Amino acid sequence: MAQQKELELEKLKEQILKMGGVVESTIQKSIKALVERDRELAQSVIAGDSIVNTYDVEIEEECIRFIALWQPTGSNLRFITTAIKIITDLERMGDLAVDICERTLELLDEPQLKPYIDIPRMAEASQKMLKDSLDAFVARDANLAMKVCEADDFVDNLNQQIFNELLVYMLQDPKNIARAVRLTYVAKYLERVGDHATNIAEMVVYMVKGKVIRHMACEMRDKP
Amino acid sequence: MAQQKELELEKLKEQILKMGGVVESTIQKSIKALVERDRELAQSVIAGDSIVNTYDVEIEEECIRFIALWQPTGSNLRFITTAIKIITDLERMGDLAVDICERTLELLDEPQLKPYIDIPRMAEASQKMLKDSLDAFVARDANLAMKVCEADDFVDNLNQQIFNELLVYMLQDPKNIARAVRLTYVAKYLERVGDHATNIAEMVVYMVKGKVIRHMACEMRDKP
Repeated sequence: MAQQKELELEKLKEQILKMGGVVESTIQKSIKALVERDRELAQSVIAGDSIVNTYDVEIEEECIRFIALWQPTGSNLRFITTAIKIITDLERMGDLAVDICERTLELLDEPQLKPYIDIPRMAEASQKMLKDSLDAFVARDANLAMKVCEADDFVDNLNQQIFNELLVYMLQDPKNIARAVRLTYVAKYLERVGDHATNIAEMVVYMVKGKVIRHMACEMRDKP
Repeated sequence: MAQQKELELEKLKEQILKMGGVVESTIQKSIKALVERDRELAQSVIAGDSIVNTYDVEIEEECIRFIALWQPTGSNLRFITTAIKIITDLERMGDLAVDICERTLELLDEPQLKPYIDIPRMAEASQKMLKDSLDAFVARDANLAMKVCEADDFVDNLNQQIFNELLVYMLQDPKNIARAVRLTYVAKYLERVGDHATNIAEMVVYMVKGKVIRHMACEMRDKP
């Protein structure tokens, strides 16, 4: 019995890591579509969102089934309730990749405003945050989770930097405004991916240490 | 015993409604601060965010304690797991009110760009969505929840309308750009309040009908 329970817990972890991997590659593809002006890729990411959504529903069902069947308490119960919240963050990160693709399709109607350098850097950093936050979750590793929280500043600063740079483009020429504003949205979507990864990391620290940090240093905060 | 369990469930509902009431008035105050250019009010909303965060942590603890103590199954278990997710949405709505106040403080450094008409309307609509979604949750009322989902289109359309109007201001005069962009963010924060209320409503429909609508018509989606 206990062994069966452990097996199901392992299976649940694998499912969450799989879902995370899908979301990670979805974000990667959305930025690839933006940078390479690849309309088809953007459209395929939008169409593929249903895969992430299916994971979300199925894993939540598994979690509820696990509680009903095994009636876990203590750290296992907290692990499951944390999982239920984590997949919600993952699903919303998938939505943000779709948002990036929608802005990308709009941007394709006009020539490219500028070469994209910081946005791909932001995407890379936020993807790493996502991966690390999930690794921290399955390994119950609070130290790795703390590192994710620290990394969020880097993403936030890049977003601020991109915003300021695009503001200059807008001031230079009104013809730049529509494109520049759309790019500020893409940067903000990536910042929110980092925020969701930070939420996950904060939940992990709470799960492991019972210490609430999610409303302290690592607080999710938007800055334009 | 069973009576005690029901009492605790009622207490939990009351706590969630209380938290929702606090978030609702926080959003209201943040828009009042914007419209009346009230620096002190904006600062007090930012300072008061800790109250919402405390509710978030305490209610989650109550939910986990309830599961461990009463080992609910079926509809009661689904009610508790839904509550755990709902308070996360409420907490993030509180963060968005803080974001509105941060943009408000920045906007106070310059004269007002334009009279605010649609932004307060958006705030009112998203607050009603929040209230209705929580009423639907505690009453397990799927029909009311569906109405919340439908109301989200109104908020999304207002956001689009505000964005287009502000774009015109930006095109008219570069001096308008910084303020106009900040206002597009405020509108987007309110759109996201509506999205969170929609998330809650979708969870309620799922909880009551076991029917997934959260990845269909009512999907959370950002549009600039």
